[in-house]
Amino acid sequence: MLAHGGGGRLSDELIRRHILPRLKNETLSELADSAKLNLESSSLCFTTDSYVVKPLFFNGGDIGKLAVCGTVNDLAVAGARPVALSLSLIIEEGFEFDVLEKILDSVSKAAQQNKVQIVAGDTKTVEAGAADKIFINTSGIGVRLDGVDLGFDKVAVGDKIIINGTIGDHGMTIISQREGIKFQSQLESDCAGLAELTCQLLNNTNGVKFMRDPTRGGLAATLSELSEQSGLSIVIHEADIPVNPTVQAAADMLGFDVLTVANEGKFIAVVSPDSAEDCLSLCRRHPLGEKASIIGEVVQTREAAVVQMLTKIGGSRVVQMPYGRELPRIC
Amino acid sequence: MLAHGGGGRLSDELIRRHILPRLKNETLSELADSAKLNLESSSLCFTTDSYVVKPLFFNGGDIGKLAVCGTVNDLAVAGARPVALSLSLIIEEGFEFDVLEKILDSVSKAAQQNKVQIVAGDTKTVEAGAADKIFINTSGIGVRLDGVDLGFDKVAVGDKIIINGTIGDHGMTIISQREGIKFQSQLESDCAGLAELTCQLLNNTNGVKFMRDPTRGGLAATLSELSEQSGLSIVIHEADIPVNPTVQAAADMLGFDVLTVANEGKFIAVVSPDSAEDCLSLCRRHPLGEKASIIGEVVQTREAAVVQMLTKIGGSRVVQMPYGRELPRIC
Repeated sequence: MLAHGGGGRLSDELIRRHILPRLKNETLSELADSAKLNLESSSLCFTTDSYVVKPLFFNGGDIGKLAVCGTVNDLAVAGARPVALSLSLIIEEGFEFDVLEKILDSVSKAAQQNKVQIVAGDTKTVEAGAADKIFINTSGIGVRLDGVDLGFDKVAVGDKIIINGTIGDHGMTIISQREGIKFQSQLESDCAGLAELTCQLLNNTNGVKFMRDPTRGGLAATLSELSEQSGLSIVIHEADIPVNPTVQAAADMLGFDVLTVANEGKFIAVVSPDSAEDCLSLCRRHPLGEKASIIGEVVQTREAAVVQMLTKIGGSRVVQMPYGRELPRIC
Repeated sequence: MLAHGGGGRLSDELIRRHILPRLKNETLSELADSAKLNLESSSLCFTTDSYVVKPLFFNGGDIGKLAVCGTVNDLAVAGARPVALSLSLIIEEGFEFDVLEKILDSVSKAAQQNKVQIVAGDTKTVEAGAADKIFINTSGIGVRLDGVDLGFDKVAVGDKIIINGTIGDHGMTIISQREGIKFQSQLESDCAGLAELTCQLLNNTNGVKFMRDPTRGGLAATLSELSEQSGLSIVIHEADIPVNPTVQAAADMLGFDVLTVANEGKFIAVVSPDSAEDCLSLCRRHPLGEKASIIGEVVQTREAAVVQMLTKIGGSRVVQMPYGRELPRIC
């Protein structure tokens, strides 16, 4: 009901009966205006994301898991260990309690798996028709790892580009489910929190210079931005980019370039040439990096900084920043 | 367009052309996955709020100003100095650029006035009909003031309750504008950031034990919660509660109890009896506290902890936690 967002008795019930028991921790339970945090460092990362994914539940995850993992990943690739998340819900009048609870259970599970606490929250309700079921915002705070300083400006010619596994799984899962294509059940989102793996990588190897998670816009957008911002060109090898065959089939069938399709459990790392093998083998020992691969390298720019892909059949094509029409409400 | 949320060229344009120029600061301009912050302390407050107010523009403010001030205030009343905010937009397809820019200008102005930076952001688009124009989430980080420790558990019998000005202004402005009542132009939201005043209060006086901003559910909800959580009763004096006469008239006309109507530029402070006069005069010297008043005190609980109001005509009534139906989409 709308009244559950009114700030009175009903709001209190919604929070105490349905939300708090699922996310319980000391900080949140105080229900203060702000969460009080005593962190081990004052050198932090801070990030925010709203999640509007449609459908709310998909193979491999749901909006709750996605809202935790997505924000964890933004902290992870910035070189931080995620610590605390906020959770803000915008709920359409009439949204079912049991669906809300299922989503909150999923938030709770993902938070535990990723060793973050939900320390602050907010709940708003809007009238039927003013939102599509539920939107979730998570913001996150992470503690920056000692001595880690990542950035476009660290990237140099010769650096290798690693990805921790197959691309396109999340996007093709969502779109196949929406389109109702027949092999949709064989597709599964890669939705996962990457902080454990990225922290291992940063703590145990040298030479990681830049990381990013290729979400909306996929690998194409991430590499294009890397090239633009560093002013350096990039060459990737199609044969070395891991793609699940079912994802490729779905992409071909629906006319998507898998390079532009969103991922939710992947990162690219730009690493120095001499550390590349170490980084790769560390990734491969982790469950989220078993299919890790060195997919390309940073090269000298000739005329303009571009991303070039050497194709499996021996050709080459320029990989462009996608325009934007690809996939609405993918995350 | 939906494509502005796709993570490609159009998203980039939206961010670089329309958003960044308005909020420009070094941290945000890096457009990294997370903002890197070096704070002066590791003892922090963290809070989040989503704003779904309708209409987007109202006398005294708009959703942008509200999104900054509301989150600043949650940090302020927790005893922190607000430092950094995130800004996450959920935009309905077809929403006009010039309205978006007006809102962002307002965000920018409010951030400057409140001495906070917008350091992280996110933009999502949803198809027409899937959201009502625009929803904004802001999350905020504040540095806790040295030696300040506020909480329900500090509140004791004899403590005085101060409010920094008139109540009900925000809620009655919104609802009057929605209802189109004739004196709506005489109403103005109190939407304002309180951190300067609360920090002055905490740094220059002793005896502040608890603060809260009476937003949704109004003063009634805030005092009810204070009473419930502290286990102590509260007596307030109707004659001492500042109410703008036009607000009172609008509330009477539309059948609202002004005690339950939302505020967006008010806080209550529970202060020790010997510091009450100091606190009051400090408030009154600040533009946002000119009409500050001691509205009541914490008293011994007899049977159950209740909030009681002594009325102007010499009667008394119990002030209850509002149920929740009062005012949807007020913030």
